[in-house]
Amino acid sequence: MSGLTAKGAATKARIVRTATDLILERGVGGMTLDEIRAGTATSKGQLFHYFPDGKRDLVAAIAEFQSGRVLEAQRPWLDQLDSWESWHGWRDAVIAHYRTLTHLHCSISALITELTPADPALAATVAAHADRWFDHLAAGVQKMRAQRRINPAADPHRLAMMVFTALQGGLLVMQAKNAIEPLEAALDGALLALESHRI
Amino acid sequence: MSGLTAKGAATKARIVRTATDLILERGVGGMTLDEIRAGTATSKGQLFHYFPDGKRDLVAAIAEFQSGRVLEAQRPWLDQLDSWESWHGWRDAVIAHYRTLTHLHCSISALITELTPADPALAATVAAHADRWFDHLAAGVQKMRAQRRINPAADPHRLAMMVFTALQGGLLVMQAKNAIEPLEAALDGALLALESHRI
Repeated sequence: MSGLTAKGAATKARIVRTATDLILERGVGGMTLDEIRAGTATSKGQLFHYFPDGKRDLVAAIAEFQSGRVLEAQRPWLDQLDSWESWHGWRDAVIAHYRTLTHLHCSISALITELTPADPALAATVAAHADRWFDHLAAGVQKMRAQRRINPAADPHRLAMMVFTALQGGLLVMQAKNAIEPLEAALDGALLALESHRI
Repeated sequence: MSGLTAKGAATKARIVRTATDLILERGVGGMTLDEIRAGTATSKGQLFHYFPDGKRDLVAAIAEFQSGRVLEAQRPWLDQLDSWESWHGWRDAVIAHYRTLTHLHCSISALITELTPADPALAATVAAHADRWFDHLAAGVQKMRAQRRINPAADPHRLAMMVFTALQGGLLVMQAKNAIEPLEAALDGALLALESHRI
């Protein structure tokens, strides 16, 4: 937001926030710039001022905003993950966050899958947010390992990947079924698998 | 394929097979009917003859064909899943199948995610194939439970959902990373979680 006044930054943030809720509801494919303009009460000139590259810029901003919001919902647990209690607290926070959503397209993964064929560069930008999520989980597994709560013989990257894939699969099937149970089953399974490396 | 001669059925099958490989490579969004025609050496009249409803018909046929191919690659294990050996055999068969693919869009889930905003009815048809996959896993968990290989106190639907979400998440991240490791981590985690209910 460099070069923007405080008021400009606030307007841009408002557009991004409103557009995010629109895009989460309808998917990238179902969202036109005109619909964004209408939904955010923004003029063509304003939208171009804040997002010179159009929908592309806006999708990147939306991914960043939504990624921040999803990570925030997992705090403080996501920054800890250094005890079994914090892993279970994290699991509960993830479930609580998604339970409140009735949106169909609520995961960044869905956004990536939609973007991949049309715009690989933008898809990579969006994917970087998913990587940040993975990195938090990997840092947690490393802490558990350093504190010898899990067997140091287990590959920490692989364990983090196991939790991350369960999370993403849970979100994907949650969306397809419009039900929270798949996410619960996925995360409970991941924690059981993690705990099978307990020492 | 009712109403088609043997030759007609063979032609339709050839178009579906070739179109499937095209769509797996490029995604639904990146595939036009003209590209399908070119890729399958089919005339406009022929394509219309076999798929009167156009791309929609073709996508449904592709989903069915690809679903059958994916399930076939998991046999005979997928129909068994009544011993720990068969679960591990199944895991290996899934990995072996996807290891040979260099396609980006190789999962039915990706197809569903792409279709959902644009065509919910078609997305539901495609999703039904994913449900068949789930049903095989659920039948396996039921057998393990009936044979008291897993604790009967564990909810079998939930355990099957846990394996299914891990599988879908593994496939999703495999695609995003273009690497087999996420799928391996996901399935190994699911089997560990399943085995934690061993009696």
